[in-house]
Amino acid sequence: MIISVIGGEDAAADALRLAEEAGRELGKRGVTLCCGGGGGIMEAACRGARSAGGHTIGILPGHDASESPPNRWVEFPVFTGIGYARNSAVVLSGDAVIAIDGAYGTLSEIAFALIHDVPLVGLDTWDFAYHGHDHNKIVRAANPQEAVEKAVELAKQHGSDSGPAG
Amino acid sequence: MIISVIGGEDAAADALRLAEEAGRELGKRGVTLCCGGGGGIMEAACRGARSAGGHTIGILPGHDASESPPNRWVEFPVFTGIGYARNSAVVLSGDAVIAIDGAYGTLSEIAFALIHDVPLVGLDTWDFAYHGHDHNKIVRAANPQEAVEKAVELAKQHGSDSGPAG
Amino acid sequence: MIISVIGGEDAAADALRLAEEAGRELGKRGVTLCCGGGGGIMEAACRGARSAGGHTIGILPGHDASESPPNRWVEFPVFTGIGYARNSAVVLSGDAVIAIDGAYGTLSEIAFALIHDVPLVGLDTWDFAYHGHDHNKIVRAANPQEAVEKAVELAKQHGSDSGPAG
Amino acid sequence: MIISVIGGEDAAADALRLAEEAGRELGKRGVTLCCGGGGGIMEAACRGARSAGGHTIGILPGHDASESPPNRWVEFPVFTGIGYARNSAVVLSGDAVIAIDGAYGTLSEIAFALIHDVPLVGLDTWDFAYHGHDHNKIVRAANPQEAVEKAVELAKQHGSDSGPAG
Repeated sequence: MIISVIGGEDAAADALRLAEEAGRELGKRGVTLCCGGGGGIMEAACRGARSAGGHTIGILPGHDASESPPNRWVEFPVFTGIGYARNSAVVLSGDAVIAIDGAYGTLSEIAFALIHDVPLVGLDTWDFAYHGHDHNKIVRAANPQEAVEKAVELAKQHGSDSGPAG
Repeated sequence: MIISVIGGEDAAADALRLAEEAGRELGKRGVTLCCGGGGGIMEAACRGARSAGGHTIGILPGHDASESPPNRWVEFPVFTGIGYARNSAVVLSGDAVIAIDGAYGTLSEIAFALIHDVPLVGLDTWDFAYHGHDHNKIVRAANPQEAVEKAVELAKQHGSDSGPAG
Repeated sequence: MIISVIGGEDAAADALRLAEEAGRELGKRGVTLCCGGGGGIMEAACRGARSAGGHTIGILPGHDASESPPNRWVEFPVFTGIGYARNSAVVLSGDAVIAIDGAYGTLSEIAFALIHDVPLVGLDTWDFAYHGHDHNKIVRAANPQEAVEKAVELAKQHGSDSGPAG
Repeated sequence: MIISVIGGEDAAADALRLAEEAGRELGKRGVTLCCGGGGGIMEAACRGARSAGGHTIGILPGHDASESPPNRWVEFPVFTGIGYARNSAVVLSGDAVIAIDGAYGTLSEIAFALIHDVPLVGLDTWDFAYHGHDHNKIVRAANPQEAVEKAVELAKQHGSDSGPAG
């Protein structure tokens, strides 16, 4: 199982602690963490995952490590060379997604998860609405443990809906 | 000048009227309209633009017209073959963007406009917030004429900020 | 009808003359020219097309005109922000492709045309083979007029094979 | 170190044996194998790598496993949703590339390696030329062991040229 953690480069200490804890929970459960490979939330989540023995994949915007240096906790860097259009691949490569905190890149990734029906758990992240109606299919979690539990559960359901390979 | 109009395939009659009127205003002013090339808001905007003699570009997700049929008012279809990752190109190809109505694809395009600092005008579209703070840099318009006026003005400013080619 | 012309930034005077003449032939026939939007072969082809009153589309690798300045004969620039992965879109957006001269970018575009079965005419361009067998489905032309005639004919056949929208 | 192996879905038994052997050599040396994640050469190379305890990454064209089923020896599937435009990412994610056999997708990947100066070793693969001059920067290998040795050596040189992260 692979779960993607999305969140921005610039994040406050509180949000970084949430991300590291979420990464650690994923690692403990033997779930591989996928992310955008950069700093901030991505780095904290990777550090947590590696500290618990988990694997980490970073899907980067640039052509190589000089253009897009992966954070030091990325075990498997994937260089796409397609810029922020790679945000779609970060989301699609997770059996579920955990969104933490909220930059504009994160907002685009939330949108891609909603477009492609990838299960999405939100931890202290964006709210949005349209016309006063709540179009928001994000499953909210109160803490990193709950976020990981919900994401793992949703990933299992999603996988069984989609057949053996989903 | 090229202005991108973003909005979803499924839209109510009111939103379609706004899109057609916005397209017509662009066409009258000799501004080329760029969009995702599909139905709904995109089709209505293209129809308006062509009715006023304007050019229309549709940047489509599929490999060819059998996979992604452009609406009949698209003069120049561009087939990307990269799926919804093409949403980024729709936004980047506009000197400014007008968002109308609100599907998840539109939300991803709004996020890309915010990521890449492309000027963005909203007409009856998404609101979002993070942590109770409004992170929302969308310039709101009350009607299609105002949306086009504001978008053209922002595009001119953006162009002069970016130098002659921007 | 849209026909894509592919070729590199650095090209000798002879190749540039072929490209300009091919562009002019396309413009005369009312065929829109699509290309990568850059210099060299692309610029010469666009100049030819515009001199004969044709439309020109340039599908560029960068995010904006400061990163990827379109040549001055590009009427409709499309900024993809996906780097050379946009080479695929250049090929897919043509009803047929004319390859002139031979850089590595051109080689990737030839490969994409072969992958996606887009009709391909070669004018003084790459030869390749595998295991001594010729896997090469490029239709060769002796001069720009013949290249355009063959490309238009192949595009018509391809369109009727693919149904009305192809 | 990550080395990408490129080659097509349809390949003869001899080519599949070369790919499996190359994968095994990579696994033995603790080098992670990256590929397009599909069948044929990709599957054989992944099987070889896993049999020797190596890690394998598959960068797939589709949105999910139902659209692009990874071969069963892919340990870390990355779903891009950008179709064959993902060929660029397969090449960029390797510190060097080994091309085996020769389909058109492989030709596009060879072109991307040449565009982006990723070191490239060829094992029984495409030859190409332009104007009778050999533009071909592929380092040829006579067998899988030699291919892996040369690729590892080139990757080390490339990495030290590019600084610590390259």
